[in-house]
Amino acid sequence: MKPIRLIAFTAFTAIALVQSARADTPLPSWNDGPAKQGIINFVEKVTKAGSPDFVPVAERIATFDNDGTLWCEQPLPVQFYFAIDRMKALAPQHPEWKDKEPFASLLKGDLKTALAGGDHALLELVMATHAGMTTAEFEQIVKDWIATAKHPKYKKPYTECVYQPMVELLAYLRENGFKTFIVSGGGIEFIRPWAEQVYGIPPEQVVGSSIKTKFEMCDGKPVLVRLSELNFIDDKAGKPVGINQHIGRQPIAAFGNSDGDQQMLEWTGAGSAARLMMLVHHDDAEREYAYGPAGGLPDTKVGTFSQSLMDEAVKRGWTVTSMKKDWKRIFPSDK
Amino acid sequence: MKPIRLIAFTAFTAIALVQSARADTPLPSWNDGPAKQGIINFVEKVTKAGSPDFVPVAERIATFDNDGTLWCEQPLPVQFYFAIDRMKALAPQHPEWKDKEPFASLLKGDLKTALAGGDHALLELVMATHAGMTTAEFEQIVKDWIATAKHPKYKKPYTECVYQPMVELLAYLRENGFKTFIVSGGGIEFIRPWAEQVYGIPPEQVVGSSIKTKFEMCDGKPVLVRLSELNFIDDKAGKPVGINQHIGRQPIAAFGNSDGDQQMLEWTGAGSAARLMMLVHHDDAEREYAYGPAGGLPDTKVGTFSQSLMDEAVKRGWTVTSMKKDWKRIFPSDK
Repeated sequence: MKPIRLIAFTAFTAIALVQSARADTPLPSWNDGPAKQGIINFVEKVTKAGSPDFVPVAERIATFDNDGTLWCEQPLPVQFYFAIDRMKALAPQHPEWKDKEPFASLLKGDLKTALAGGDHALLELVMATHAGMTTAEFEQIVKDWIATAKHPKYKKPYTECVYQPMVELLAYLRENGFKTFIVSGGGIEFIRPWAEQVYGIPPEQVVGSSIKTKFEMCDGKPVLVRLSELNFIDDKAGKPVGINQHIGRQPIAAFGNSDGDQQMLEWTGAGSAARLMMLVHHDDAEREYAYGPAGGLPDTKVGTFSQSLMDEAVKRGWTVTSMKKDWKRIFPSDK
Repeated sequence: MKPIRLIAFTAFTAIALVQSARADTPLPSWNDGPAKQGIINFVEKVTKAGSPDFVPVAERIATFDNDGTLWCEQPLPVQFYFAIDRMKALAPQHPEWKDKEPFASLLKGDLKTALAGGDHALLELVMATHAGMTTAEFEQIVKDWIATAKHPKYKKPYTECVYQPMVELLAYLRENGFKTFIVSGGGIEFIRPWAEQVYGIPPEQVVGSSIKTKFEMCDGKPVLVRLSELNFIDDKAGKPVGINQHIGRQPIAAFGNSDGDQQMLEWTGAGSAARLMMLVHHDDAEREYAYGPAGGLPDTKVGTFSQSLMDEAVKRGWTVTSMKKDWKRIFPSDK
C-alpha cells in the first residue's frame, strides 16, 4: 500500500473505530437489558429526522428528581445533614436551643425524638438554618459545606455519592440535543451551587422547593435576603406546577424514584408524542440501600416507593429500573 | 489567472466580504452613537478570551423587560387589550357583568370609569379572563388572539409592533454566546406562546407575573388548572426575586424602560464584573410615543419613566437610549 493510501486507510479505520466505539457504548455503566435498551430506543426515535416520533431539539426537555434519583438519599436526605451541621455551627449564638425542640434533641444527637415533631419540627430546623442571610451568603455556606461534608456510610463527599449510570444518562441525553433539568423536592438554592459541576446542569435548569426572598438595598448595594417563609414546595402535585412555572412546556422524558415523583411522570406522559418515564428502584441492599414496600422491601419515610406507585407504573407503562440488575456500578468510584 | 486559482480567489474574496459585512453591521437598525457603541464595546470585552473582562459563556445572562422595551406598550399594555377582548367574548355567559364594575364600563367602552377602580378593578378583570381553564386551553386562547388582534394605532398585529433594534440586539447577544431572558411584569403564560417565534426566546427563558395553578386528573388525563389567585408579581422589587427564582444567577446585561425595571438594573449592576444596564427612553412622538416626565415629556401611568429613575441611571452610569436619536427604525416594517 502506498503511504498516502495507508494514511487514508488508517485515518478511515480510526474514525470508523471511534464511531463504532461511540455507537456501541452509550451508558457504559448500564447492564444490557430492557431498561438500557428502552432509553436508547426512545432517544433514537425522537432524534431521527423524518421519523414519525421525531421531536425538535427545542422540545427535548428531560426532568430529573434529585434525591434518590441522581444521588443517595439514605439514611436521610443530604440536605437534612446540611441543616444539622448548620444548626450545630449556629448553636453558640442560640443558647435558647438547648431547651427548644427540635434543636435540643438534635444537639444531643437524638434524631428520633427530634423527628417526632414531624413537618413542624422540620420546618423549624429549615428556617433556623436556611433563612436570615443573603442569597450570596447562603450560596457560599452551601459551597463550603458540600466541599468538606461526608456521607455517614460511604465516608466520601456527597458529590461522589451520585449515581454514575444517571450521570451518564444526563450526558447521553444532552449529546442528543436534550435540555436536562432537575425537578427536586429539595431546596433550589441548596442544589444550584454544585449541580453544574457535578451533573452539568446550570442554575437556570434547577427547579426546587424555596423560601421567599426580599430585595433590599444594604449600604447602597442590592441584596436578596432569605426570609423565614415558605414560597413553594416542589413535591408530588407541586412538581408539574413547578415544571410549568420554570420550563413552560411538558417534558418528553422524566426520571424519579418515589411517590413524590408520580405526578411529574403523569404530567410528562400526558402528551401524545413519544415519551419516556422511568423510576429508579432501590433494591440493592449490598451496594446501596433497599427500600420501598414495592417488591416487598422495607418501608421508609424517606423516598417511599409505595405499591400504589408501582401499580401506576405498570398501568401507564413506565420503566422501573432495578439498581441491582440494571446498573453495572452505582457510584463513580465503583469498578 | 488559472481557473482553479480564480475559483480559490473568488471563494476567498466572497468569504472575506461576508465576514467583513458581518463584522461591520451588527445592530443595523441602530444609528452610530454612544448607545450602539456601548453595546458593541461591552460585548467585545466580555467575549474576548484573555481579556480581564472576559465572562464564560455560561454566565452570559441578559434580561429584557417586555412591555415598552421589546414591544409597544401604549396607549395601553397589549395584555390589557387581550383581557378586554376576552371579557367581551365571555360576556354572553356572564349577564351579571352588565351591572358589575369594571365589566359594565368596559362593555360600554368607557375605559376611564373602568380604570378608576384601580388595581382592584384590574385584578377582577385579569381573574375573570385569565383563570378557570387549563394551561393548555389558555395557551391556545392566547395563540388564537395574538394571530388576529391588531394594535389600535398601527393597525397591524401586536407581534409586528416589536422594536426592530431590540430584536437585533437579542440576536446579536445570542450570536455572542448570551442566553437571553424576558423578565416582564406581564403574565408569563401570556408571553410564552409567541415569544419563541417573535423574539427567539423559548418558554423556559420567560420570567413573568403569574397566577397559581393546580395539578388535577381530569378523566384520567393530567391537567394544570389556572386558579383565581395571584402567585407572583414580577415587577419592581419583584424582578430581582423572579430572576433569582428562575435563573439563579445575576445577569451581566439588563434592558428596561420604566420605573418597574429599576431594581432589575440595580441587581444586574451589583456584581463586580463588566456589566451593561440600559433604559429605552420613549421620546419619539412622531414614530412611536413620547412619555415619562424625565426629559420634560408627559407623564403616563403606563410605563412611567420618572425623574428619580433618570437620576438613578445617571448616578449608576446606565445607558439611556433615545428612540428618536439612537434608532434608525422602530418597527420591523419601517424602512
